[in-house]
Amino acid sequence: MDEEPIAQQRVFTGQLIAVDELTVKLPNNTIAQREIVRAQPAAGVLALKDDKALFVSQFRSTIGQMTLEIPAGKINQGEAPLTAARRELNEETGMTAMKWQPLASYFQSLGFSDATMALFLASELHLATNQLHQDPDEFVKGEWLTLPEAWRAVDDGRICDSKTLLALLYWQQQGIGA
Amino acid sequence: MDEEPIAQQRVFTGQLIAVDELTVKLPNNTIAQREIVRAQPAAGVLALKDDKALFVSQFRSTIGQMTLEIPAGKINQGEAPLTAARRELNEETGMTAMKWQPLASYFQSLGFSDATMALFLASELHLATNQLHQDPDEFVKGEWLTLPEAWRAVDDGRICDSKTLLALLYWQQQGIGA
Repeated sequence: MDEEPIAQQRVFTGQLIAVDELTVKLPNNTIAQREIVRAQPAAGVLALKDDKALFVSQFRSTIGQMTLEIPAGKINQGEAPLTAARRELNEETGMTAMKWQPLASYFQSLGFSDATMALFLASELHLATNQLHQDPDEFVKGEWLTLPEAWRAVDDGRICDSKTLLALLYWQQQGIGA
Repeated sequence: MDEEPIAQQRVFTGQLIAVDELTVKLPNNTIAQREIVRAQPAAGVLALKDDKALFVSQFRSTIGQMTLEIPAGKINQGEAPLTAARRELNEETGMTAMKWQPLASYFQSLGFSDATMALFLASELHLATNQLHQDPDEFVKGEWLTLPEAWRAVDDGRICDSKTLLALLYWQQQGIGA
């Protein structure tokens, strides 16, 4: 069932993403083109304290509206996913956590991109003594919600992305954060 | 906290996706560039029968490997998400369902794309009398798994994408499919 790659051409190079056009031979020997968005891997954090999780409110130019998401961001070149998760939690919320565990690692949009997301659960939270600065082009605001409040934010459309929905479902599963 | 859009330019136009470069004014009045991948919306189906769900095995050029995913595909122009979900289930597996309910609708990769996914739960499955053909460039193979088998497929990396993970977590939630 494999597709055999015949040629690959970079058709767009941006600052954030690049697009490759792949020419493949299908199992029936016909030729097809595939566009693939190459994107930096990302890490996200479900940060729990007592019965609440920490979300960040931010404006997303991709959809032109404010959203509520778990803290997350790109993994730098050579950086471990957990290191990126710790850094993003600190940068976006000023918090740090004593306890970390991996929840899931997956492809965000397998139909058109190789972009990955590594989700972590962080607990035993406290204010970071060494607070990192937010990225200069990032303006986010922290918000603590209980699980029922978070589901209401799904209903009213403020929580609307895959990583945050996944985090809510992991949170809801028995045993996590309990 | 809004970013004010100042200019938008299409910097890549492909068959599957397009890329826009957006120039925005940040809350601190500085100017930033945002690359946005415009992609067709998609629909996916958690199709349950007894204690099993239907997955499709396929080769994904985006990551150069075989995966196991819930049936899914692009929503055509003007097509309702549910209509697309029904069509994709039929095209990819030859099955149809009597009972449908929405599970979630979300942005797949909010950091760089406006791509959406609408997930549905399908039950009371049977073979479609009017079987649709697979897309000419698509080669998928159906596979029935129980929930524990599906989690093992997550562990061994065959299930590795956001929509399928979300579907498993919804499936696992009490009441769904029971």
